[in-house]
Amino acid sequence: MIYLDHNATTPPAPGVVQAMLATMTDGWANASSQHPLGQQAKRALAAARASVARALGCKPSEAIFTSGATEANHLAVLGLHAAAREAGRPRIVFSAVEHAGHLALARVLAAQGVPVDFIGVRADGMLDLDEAARLIGADVGLVSLMAANNETGVLMPVADVRALAHAVGARMHVDATQFIGKAPFDFAALGVEAVSLSAHKLRGPKGIGALLLRQGVALRPQMQGSQERHRRGGTENLPAIVGFAAALDALGDVEAKAARVAHLRDALEAGLQRALPGVRVFGAGAPRVGCTSYLRFGQLPAEVVLQRLEQLGVCASSGAACSSGGSEPSHVLAAMGVPRDDALAAVRLSLGEATTARDIEYLLATLPPLLAPLLENDAAHAA
Amino acid sequence: MIYLDHNATTPPAPGVVQAMLATMTDGWANASSQHPLGQQAKRALAAARASVARALGCKPSEAIFTSGATEANHLAVLGLHAAAREAGRPRIVFSAVEHAGHLALARVLAAQGVPVDFIGVRADGMLDLDEAARLIGADVGLVSLMAANNETGVLMPVADVRALAHAVGARMHVDATQFIGKAPFDFAALGVEAVSLSAHKLRGPKGIGALLLRQGVALRPQMQGSQERHRRGGTENLPAIVGFAAALDALGDVEAKAARVAHLRDALEAGLQRALPGVRVFGAGAPRVGCTSYLRFGQLPAEVVLQRLEQLGVCASSGAACSSGGSEPSHVLAAMGVPRDDALAAVRLSLGEATTARDIEYLLATLPPLLAPLLENDAAHAA
Repeated sequence: MIYLDHNATTPPAPGVVQAMLATMTDGWANASSQHPLGQQAKRALAAARASVARALGCKPSEAIFTSGATEANHLAVLGLHAAAREAGRPRIVFSAVEHAGHLALARVLAAQGVPVDFIGVRADGMLDLDEAARLIGADVGLVSLMAANNETGVLMPVADVRALAHAVGARMHVDATQFIGKAPFDFAALGVEAVSLSAHKLRGPKGIGALLLRQGVALRPQMQGSQERHRRGGTENLPAIVGFAAALDALGDVEAKAARVAHLRDALEAGLQRALPGVRVFGAGAPRVGCTSYLRFGQLPAEVVLQRLEQLGVCASSGAACSSGGSEPSHVLAAMGVPRDDALAAVRLSLGEATTARDIEYLLATLPPLLAPLLENDAAHAA
Repeated sequence: MIYLDHNATTPPAPGVVQAMLATMTDGWANASSQHPLGQQAKRALAAARASVARALGCKPSEAIFTSGATEANHLAVLGLHAAAREAGRPRIVFSAVEHAGHLALARVLAAQGVPVDFIGVRADGMLDLDEAARLIGADVGLVSLMAANNETGVLMPVADVRALAHAVGARMHVDATQFIGKAPFDFAALGVEAVSLSAHKLRGPKGIGALLLRQGVALRPQMQGSQERHRRGGTENLPAIVGFAAALDALGDVEAKAARVAHLRDALEAGLQRALPGVRVFGAGAPRVGCTSYLRFGQLPAEVVLQRLEQLGVCASSGAACSSGGSEPSHVLAAMGVPRDDALAAVRLSLGEATTARDIEYLLATLPPLLAPLLENDAAHAA
């Protein structure tokens, strides 16, 4: 089985599973308990938090552990918006290509009367910075933008948008779920107020993530409780936090790893384009994270391609896992102006640490012969 | 080490750790992915959900997995209140002895202008049903009551309050975090709209819990996303869900286990009262779950007793883990009308599956000699 769906989730690193196993066996006490077992858990929590903070370039107190990126995104938007609204800045600006769950939150807020705007993207998937400049006005309290798109891999101009947001006094939240682990990241250097991430996208456990929140920034908690300095209630999920820290530790030289994966991705795309007619890569003209290839084979429906990939023992996806299985074209591709039939042909191949040159060679050797006859039919049909 | 803080958290059952390990190793794919690995995860999720539902007496579709009881409690109250408010029933009634995080949510809602009331308890910790009847009026949309108190173990009259709530057309939410696993439970038989629970209180993993929601009851999601039938977004935490199911499976004969633990608890209380003067058990006059003993040794400050227990290798607590470490007396004891100095003497011993008769014998043989001299001083001082 060749797994090319790393943007959906990643296999936990062996060190992660071991660290969790050890914590579940020997460090299962409640970190808020005052007895020795609780204090042992509390020290393990502090150590894991320090380790996570070191890896992400934030202070330990700036990391708020959540159940994942979805919760962190909600906490950021709802928690920062509450303070901004009180300061007379009710408007929130999102990009039009945020994760589906995040856009659903935006729509819920809009339905509740919160003024919400969406920055569009260009045909190559890049954020429209002119529109960003127009939309980020004096009544904007919060701008929420992903660092890298989960479908196309296109990198968003976080620094430019941060400058626009800060120029009007707005807070900036970055959903870095698809970025951290794939490119060097440093919270302090990024200069935004809040960053979300998820452990399971970077070989950590499921059910854990974090909101990094710059010291001094007011946040309204969404779950009451004394944990996480009263910013997120609920018994600390220590085994998962320890696993999260282990996954970040195991990232190693992110830049070198990303370059290796980007090289494989580029070889894959070039090879497919050489071997087959009508292969088009979405977002190819924009800077992208190295792991992601979002492409179509003419107008072959994605399910046809995925079925052939499955036949070859390759796991891939027609887009975000959370919306796969639906028959609607991707909202990301719609925002890029991709016609419906092209969008319904989109297949996402997302590479990861375990992906080898051999995997790519195998795919290049086996997929084109399976698809070529279909593409000829497709071309004949279209002609 | 003798662990008598099972109400704070429990050691994961060996089968739980094994099940999680297997899932992290071989079932780590995203359950929303359409490829074979994703479909395998989806089947594992469905099987775990069916198993959880069987154990709890609900339909599989009635179980909404959350990150724990805190999230489930928030989802219940915020999610059910949204619908009730729209129906012209804005008022929420809580008990005065809910978990501290849950009461904090009630206060946040009150500060936002939501009408909120609190049903008091009597001196023995039992809910004041007369006050409940007075407070549950026609504008009440939701009643939120715990099944068993986390500090005293006192069982709340859920059926009586449910009858009061349903008589006025209000919804009923039960926080059963400290009840399930300690007494027989069946969601359908309980007849309430929503029940919260947490896996780590019943030898399951941390970071997972559920809200059981009766079919057909409207709930506003608090985290957007396609998962859990759009009721709770975020990639499913399959390893923890599988561990949760394994923990419920491992509960076995809850009634027999609870009787065994209650017998030990009763022996502990009786033995301490025989051996030492001034031992008072909070909630002793009320029906309690069998695992919990909340008591004081005269007015010996809790930290003095806990220090002696630590010396004996016994882990216990001065109350809820989430508020231990604070110097304020318990809000539960305050609601029972316990004087401050008595409340600051409160020590909670919570037994569990691993507790043996030998542990209790050891405690009865070793603790009284350590405390007796202090209690004589204490009595002399008080006289």
